[in-house]
Amino acid sequence: MPTMGNLHAGHLSLIERAREDADRVVYSIFVNPMQFGPDEDLDGYPRTLESDEAALGKHGGVDLLFLPDLRTIYPYGTDSAVSVSLPPLGNDLCGASRPGHFDGVASVVLRLMNIVMPHTLVLGDKDYQQRVLLQRMLEDLHVPAAVVSAEIYREPDGLAMSSRNGYLTAEEREVAPGLHAELGSVAQALRDGACDYAALESVAMANLAERGFRSDYVSVRRAHDLAPPDVFEAGDERIVLAAAWLGKARLIDNIRV
Amino acid sequence: MPTMGNLHAGHLSLIERAREDADRVVYSIFVNPMQFGPDEDLDGYPRTLESDEAALGKHGGVDLLFLPDLRTIYPYGTDSAVSVSLPPLGNDLCGASRPGHFDGVASVVLRLMNIVMPHTLVLGDKDYQQRVLLQRMLEDLHVPAAVVSAEIYREPDGLAMSSRNGYLTAEEREVAPGLHAELGSVAQALRDGACDYAALESVAMANLAERGFRSDYVSVRRAHDLAPPDVFEAGDERIVLAAAWLGKARLIDNIRV
Repeated sequence: MPTMGNLHAGHLSLIERAREDADRVVYSIFVNPMQFGPDEDLDGYPRTLESDEAALGKHGGVDLLFLPDLRTIYPYGTDSAVSVSLPPLGNDLCGASRPGHFDGVASVVLRLMNIVMPHTLVLGDKDYQQRVLLQRMLEDLHVPAAVVSAEIYREPDGLAMSSRNGYLTAEEREVAPGLHAELGSVAQALRDGACDYAALESVAMANLAERGFRSDYVSVRRAHDLAPPDVFEAGDERIVLAAAWLGKARLIDNIRV
Repeated sequence: MPTMGNLHAGHLSLIERAREDADRVVYSIFVNPMQFGPDEDLDGYPRTLESDEAALGKHGGVDLLFLPDLRTIYPYGTDSAVSVSLPPLGNDLCGASRPGHFDGVASVVLRLMNIVMPHTLVLGDKDYQQRVLLQRMLEDLHVPAAVVSAEIYREPDGLAMSSRNGYLTAEEREVAPGLHAELGSVAQALRDGACDYAALESVAMANLAERGFRSDYVSVRRAHDLAPPDVFEAGDERIVLAAAWLGKARLIDNIRV
């Protein structure tokens, strides 16, 4: 499991998922500069190693906690690092507002895979686009490891667990579950047979705006590859995804249908 | 050993080098579309599998001859393949006149490494920049394999062996060893203490033009990383490299000093 630390219950739930499949569990914490844009707050990203270690310990521990430094991961530095270029999906959805982000994620995960050489990569479904892209990278580059996904871990009011929830004020925290609620409405409409996807998306974005969000996107896609509705075929599992800002926090969530 | 086939004695000499280190030798032949530019002759590239197999057989054979098809290497096709982006050296020297070429080479070699999982990658020194870049890729991405290099294999008159020599007319073939001869003159000047690298390079290019070549570059670099003269330090091994056209053939060569 590759993580950037600042562990919450969602991260910890991945360990249980990993133990179902694996004899040994390797957990990495590395804040990866290559996945931060120039306007994103790399320096301010919460580094909470002591409490992370305590949380892992309370959770039964892992077989190896891997805490590489920058030079270990990027022996030639980050400015002229060999990097991974993902297919167009990497610049879509969250990639559209975070140029280079997913290439940066892929570039660190490939390194971690080559160092740790796991049979299985455990990824959470909150970062669904990331999971699809990393799975694609492993398959396309023939990295001999399978991706195991773990369901979104939610607060009792529906808010998906995320390190970014820590950026929310008390007032914003009250509003935040509205993201999941709006996705739930779209999902219900899809189950009820709605298929004007563009209309569903714009209604959801309008509702989010009314709740106080600034949304990047609400989008209905095919679940397994995030292809857009014009290629949907009967029986395809669908997914509705969203990214929306609340104050300083950019929240993402999704529901499969 | 990754190759594109059309094997000559230079390719075959790599097998001996491999056997010095390896219990088992895997040889791949795959004409990689991703390393051809839009103006380069992918379709016309010589595919000579029968004579290649015969040549390998005569040479004692290999433990595995790997002949993957396009779909095996690029399960998602080449247009939206996950690819490798090399550092700036990838766009320098041969990369300057062949945009995307080395990224394409890296993208196939990484796949071959993940499929075959060799301990050692054997590369010829004729494609010296390619060897430096692939070594960099393996180190930077933490691919657990070492690069072993094999010296340039030359015709008796000095011409470096290459599939591209087959494009030369009889007349051009007479002229072709002039490339090695000019590099030899630069190398000798360096050994004699010359250090006006720009002057050495332009004299060599003028001489090549007089011999009938259209040269892409003649360049003196630091051997281990191909850094330019402004970062040379005392004791650095140097290398003089060139690429020059003769008719339809783009020939490359180098000499270390």
